[in-house]
Amino acid sequence: MAYDKSAVRKILDQAKAANRTSLTAPEARGVCEAYGINIPKEGVAKTAEEAVKLASQIGFPVVMKIVSPQILHKTEAGGVLVGVKSAEAVSEGFGTIVGNARKYDPKADILGVQVQQMLAGGQEVIIGAVTDPAFGKLVAFGLGGILVEVLKDITFRLAPATNEDALSMLDGIAAAEILRGVRGAKAVDRAALAGMIEKVSKLVADFPEISEMDLNPVFATQEGATAADVRIVLDFKPQVVRERLSTEEILAKMNRIMKPDAVAVIGASAENGKIGNSVMKNLINGGYQGAIYPIHPTATEIMGKKAYKSVKDVPGAIDVAVFAIPAKFVAKALIEVGEKKIAGAVLIPSGFAETGNVAGQQELVEIGKKYGVRLMGPNIYGFYYTPKNLCATFCTAFDVKGKAALSSQSGGIGMAIIGFSRSAKMGVSAIVGVGNKSDIDEDDLLTFFEQDDNTQIIAQHCEDLKDGRAFAEVAKRVSKKKPVVVLKAGRTSLGARAASSHTGALAGNDKIYEDVFKQSGVIRARSLRDMLEFARGIPVMPTPKGNNVVIITGAGGSGVLLSDACVDNDLSLMAMPPDLDAAFRKFIPPFGAAGNPVDITGGEPPTTYQNTVRLGLEDPRIHALILGYWHTIITPPMVFAKLMVEVVQQMKAKGFEKPVVASLAGDVEVEEAAEYLYQHGIPAYPYSTEIPVAVLGAKYKWARGAGLIPPV
Amino acid sequence: MAYDKSAVRKILDQAKAANRTSLTAPEARGVCEAYGINIPKEGVAKTAEEAVKLASQIGFPVVMKIVSPQILHKTEAGGVLVGVKSAEAVSEGFGTIVGNARKYDPKADILGVQVQQMLAGGQEVIIGAVTDPAFGKLVAFGLGGILVEVLKDITFRLAPATNEDALSMLDGIAAAEILRGVRGAKAVDRAALAGMIEKVSKLVADFPEISEMDLNPVFATQEGATAADVRIVLDFKPQVVRERLSTEEILAKMNRIMKPDAVAVIGASAENGKIGNSVMKNLINGGYQGAIYPIHPTATEIMGKKAYKSVKDVPGAIDVAVFAIPAKFVAKALIEVGEKKIAGAVLIPSGFAETGNVAGQQELVEIGKKYGVRLMGPNIYGFYYTPKNLCATFCTAFDVKGKAALSSQSGGIGMAIIGFSRSAKMGVSAIVGVGNKSDIDEDDLLTFFEQDDNTQIIAQHCEDLKDGRAFAEVAKRVSKKKPVVVLKAGRTSLGARAASSHTGALAGNDKIYEDVFKQSGVIRARSLRDMLEFARGIPVMPTPKGNNVVIITGAGGSGVLLSDACVDNDLSLMAMPPDLDAAFRKFIPPFGAAGNPVDITGGEPPTTYQNTVRLGLEDPRIHALILGYWHTIITPPMVFAKLMVEVVQQMKAKGFEKPVVASLAGDVEVEEAAEYLYQHGIPAYPYSTEIPVAVLGAKYKWARGAGLIPPV
Repeated sequence: MAYDKSAVRKILDQAKAANRTSLTAPEARGVCEAYGINIPKEGVAKTAEEAVKLASQIGFPVVMKIVSPQILHKTEAGGVLVGVKSAEAVSEGFGTIVGNARKYDPKADILGVQVQQMLAGGQEVIIGAVTDPAFGKLVAFGLGGILVEVLKDITFRLAPATNEDALSMLDGIAAAEILRGVRGAKAVDRAALAGMIEKVSKLVADFPEISEMDLNPVFATQEGATAADVRIVLDFKPQVVRERLSTEEILAKMNRIMKPDAVAVIGASAENGKIGNSVMKNLINGGYQGAIYPIHPTATEIMGKKAYKSVKDVPGAIDVAVFAIPAKFVAKALIEVGEKKIAGAVLIPSGFAETGNVAGQQELVEIGKKYGVRLMGPNIYGFYYTPKNLCATFCTAFDVKGKAALSSQSGGIGMAIIGFSRSAKMGVSAIVGVGNKSDIDEDDLLTFFEQDDNTQIIAQHCEDLKDGRAFAEVAKRVSKKKPVVVLKAGRTSLGARAASSHTGALAGNDKIYEDVFKQSGVIRARSLRDMLEFARGIPVMPTPKGNNVVIITGAGGSGVLLSDACVDNDLSLMAMPPDLDAAFRKFIPPFGAAGNPVDITGGEPPTTYQNTVRLGLEDPRIHALILGYWHTIITPPMVFAKLMVEVVQQMKAKGFEKPVVASLAGDVEVEEAAEYLYQHGIPAYPYSTEIPVAVLGAKYKWARGAGLIPPV
Repeated sequence: MAYDKSAVRKILDQAKAANRTSLTAPEARGVCEAYGINIPKEGVAKTAEEAVKLASQIGFPVVMKIVSPQILHKTEAGGVLVGVKSAEAVSEGFGTIVGNARKYDPKADILGVQVQQMLAGGQEVIIGAVTDPAFGKLVAFGLGGILVEVLKDITFRLAPATNEDALSMLDGIAAAEILRGVRGAKAVDRAALAGMIEKVSKLVADFPEISEMDLNPVFATQEGATAADVRIVLDFKPQVVRERLSTEEILAKMNRIMKPDAVAVIGASAENGKIGNSVMKNLINGGYQGAIYPIHPTATEIMGKKAYKSVKDVPGAIDVAVFAIPAKFVAKALIEVGEKKIAGAVLIPSGFAETGNVAGQQELVEIGKKYGVRLMGPNIYGFYYTPKNLCATFCTAFDVKGKAALSSQSGGIGMAIIGFSRSAKMGVSAIVGVGNKSDIDEDDLLTFFEQDDNTQIIAQHCEDLKDGRAFAEVAKRVSKKKPVVVLKAGRTSLGARAASSHTGALAGNDKIYEDVFKQSGVIRARSLRDMLEFARGIPVMPTPKGNNVVIITGAGGSGVLLSDACVDNDLSLMAMPPDLDAAFRKFIPPFGAAGNPVDITGGEPPTTYQNTVRLGLEDPRIHALILGYWHTIITPPMVFAKLMVEVVQQMKAKGFEKPVVASLAGDVEVEEAAEYLYQHGIPAYPYSTEIPVAVLGAKYKWARGAGLIPPV
């Protein structure tokens, strides 16, 4: 539909000229009409006679409300009458309302009384909009009354929202069933409701000065949706416009930084224990094959490499400079880095914003901008990029190469990533510390890893997002190609914020992150281990081609727990077709249970696992397998593991490729079996029924978010 | 208050005599009156004139409802009129209702029309009761309307419920806040509401034939609670009375079984690979010092022990017989075991109820009962009791002694317990397989472990409870002394059940387990790993003396994630008092953050950890510590670990003993450090911020459930 932007502009300009921070009811009505948002028939009466005339045109009963720019809380002011049924009552009501309003605020300008068609019936919902410091404009949807207020059952999307986004919001609340009609009520008109959400989201996106908006309640019926009350809050303060680089600009620098041909170490040292010494050692011992230039005020050579006083003295080009000098010397060296046209500065030093030295950090940002130097950090451990054997960090060298790229905002979490990766033999393409994020942040990394053939999955730990909207936009694009896992810390500290609208007051930080991540196809990790296990497990498995999951288990007890975990992780256990059920039954003892889980029972030889798993891989109706192994003398752990790898590889050669995960119940030998399985593409865990299923669930979440398979 | 049981008995006898399965409204009213359950003023009219007279006495408006034993769904039958305002309308309504009812069911006996005081205002809630196959009578509470029906926001307790139980139900629903008054509404009269719950629970406990009951809606206001509608469903089928042994009877046998002086192995074998051979090896190699009697039809000696044809041939007394013979021979041998007055039979063989051979299993149960032999299994791996070096199982011997007693219904899960325990060096007192639970079940084990000084914590995996009520009663008693952890599998398969009441239809199996476990002080594990980690971690820590938890962390990033985990696990981060804040600040760098978490920052020497942790242990306002370690060169992992153990032990010697857990972020060396910490009483985990907090959370859950510290 066509939106009448100029009508809205005129109303907002009026309000701005009058120095107002909210719209009057007639103004809000005008805004809604301009954007095709359904509102009740109504008009404003300046006298009791006008009110009676209006009410007769609209039809009884009517609602009457005071109109005054100073009175926002009309009910509190005694300025609302509901269900006014006759001309007489309207006439009398006019006097009452105006009188109450005068008493409530003697200084208020009273512009008249709004006479409005009375809505009732259907389901009351709330549609609103807020401005979030990280994500900007968001549209919100929830059910009216206690469901939103007590149970906080509300959902958000970035504005403008697509029609698909809007429809997903109707299913995005816990009480979604109510909209489909319960207790004899009719289902609501979903298209009308989604349409209204879309229009509100477009409106606030088009007019940034609309800082908060409430349509509350909206009456949703089977025939449509009408907003009974509209509140629009304004903020004319100039918006902070975040600078954004184009993808090309980002990549031009990020490719040089992450895959440099030459690295300078500012503050390189031959002295053990110094950070500049650790960095040099890691570069050399890590096997980096590019040029390494130690920068030192006096030394002529450090660890066999010719040293220079300044990067400017180095004869060749340099791609990245790693800083290992105290905070107070960084700015001067960074100017030289700029003059040398180095693409990036890896700012290991601390002593900036994290210690309160905001000005010092701002100085670096300005130097970086002036010279076009991208800054990583400050206050970081540096970074690894294993395809180039590059360990630009003071931590220990890392050499377990693979396809997972990880980053962390915190140094401690970075160390946990390194330790876990090494211990679990998780193949890594990169580990990056972003620290204070003075410049390079999560979306720059996503942009680089998107086009980096050495990376298949990106996992990021963050505590905040500098520019949530940029992140969401990039993540939405990248997650279509590669899984993006995010561990958002601080999720339980709901941001209490000052808000003058209902929706605003309900916008707890974490719910917004939750919804925007979902809207962007991001897999949210609930814990550090989850993030690490997802990064490890997701890339080793093929992508499922559909939602049908089958459990094949030797231990009935594991089967039950694996089924529980499937429900917890939104996996869909296939209803076993009779012919397939019969086919499985052929391979298992008569007292085993087919159906799903397929319970092959505990005392079975390797062939039973082999036959059933082969069938599971072969049948095209099954899309993923979960194996429950039970340690017995007849089928020892490594026999099972080797056989499973063999079957999976045989079937892969025949073109049947499906994700398979395994839960191993048994004595300590199952640990070796789990490792063998993992190394051969089957994420497997000893003593756990829940982790393998969670890893498969994360893969499914990604595949569904990327549109590769339908939602369940 | 006095309950008029004889009045209820009379009404129920009437209904029974008439072969009815539900009560009429006047009967239900009589039942409520007898138990002091508030109901509206009302009466039954047989004619329109009577109805008018009644309505005038009660006061208008009134509600009118058809009274017919055959018509349960009155609204559907057009048998309800609400808000009838005048004598005329009552008179007319009488005809309408009776007419509708006749049309709806021409065969229905129409006893009249109920005329009732119309209730409105306040909060609508539901109070009900159901009969659960495992738990028997349960009382239910929820909010009326969509909250219960769509969001399933309902809570259960075993009936009869104490007043404390009833009050806890008001807080046990998600929307609890509503009862405290929201959006200008008044808080409800909690005592009145809890009183009504208590009375309903007493009623159904007193009269087992009341199988389901609904008070729906109950209008709860600030002055009281009145049940507007009552439905009572009856079931006169004789109740299955479960036999229960007294604690003394259970212990007399269980002590002999778990701590035997002599063990017979029926089906002992010298042949490798046979189950009877594995059992013999495990008994001997496990180091069991009691007498071992191999039973074999022909052999005279097995593995150096004199063999007998039958247990009856053994000269001395025998406490327990381990069966390692095929199913078909078990009954005969069990009779001999009975004749020999052996206390228990460990029935390893499968081939009973789990394969459909229910009769075979029943035969064993009857033999067991006849001779007073307690049966473990059948279909189990056997059991371990490490204080006696007893490995009465065909699995591998187990020797990591400690204080955790575990059991599993599934053999596979049993193997996972063994593997995890060995790998994690979890000290174990017992591991028991209960399998088909033909006799010995979870509550027998609880009763034994309660008085077993070698056991400090009991962790049980189960898929169902044979007698949920017995379990709950025993668990409630035992959990006051020792933590009881339960992994209830099958929690996501909600039991769909046929029910003729509202409450009945809402009684999903898992919610009942959830609530009864809570009522019984049981810590519910959400996953297999959780159960194992809780069993490992809880006994090594002292019990906290209060709810104030403080995080001390080297990594700010870990601090944020640890705080998230505290919220997830209902731990209460102490608001740091100013003097304590100042005291912590003395030890940390100026840019570190005190408050809670105490962020000592990353580059600190061991003394900073030492000073802050010592302070945390010393100050009596702090009750538990969570440590976040960050691997650095200055404070390497083992230096940290040894120092922490030293500080904790020093402070313990001074009388300051508090639970401490640790999260270690770092390279692989942190694994060794975590193990060292664990072995010295500090549950510690590498690469995880969530597991240590979950373990501390479980300890707190127990301490709160046992009444050792107040709820938060």
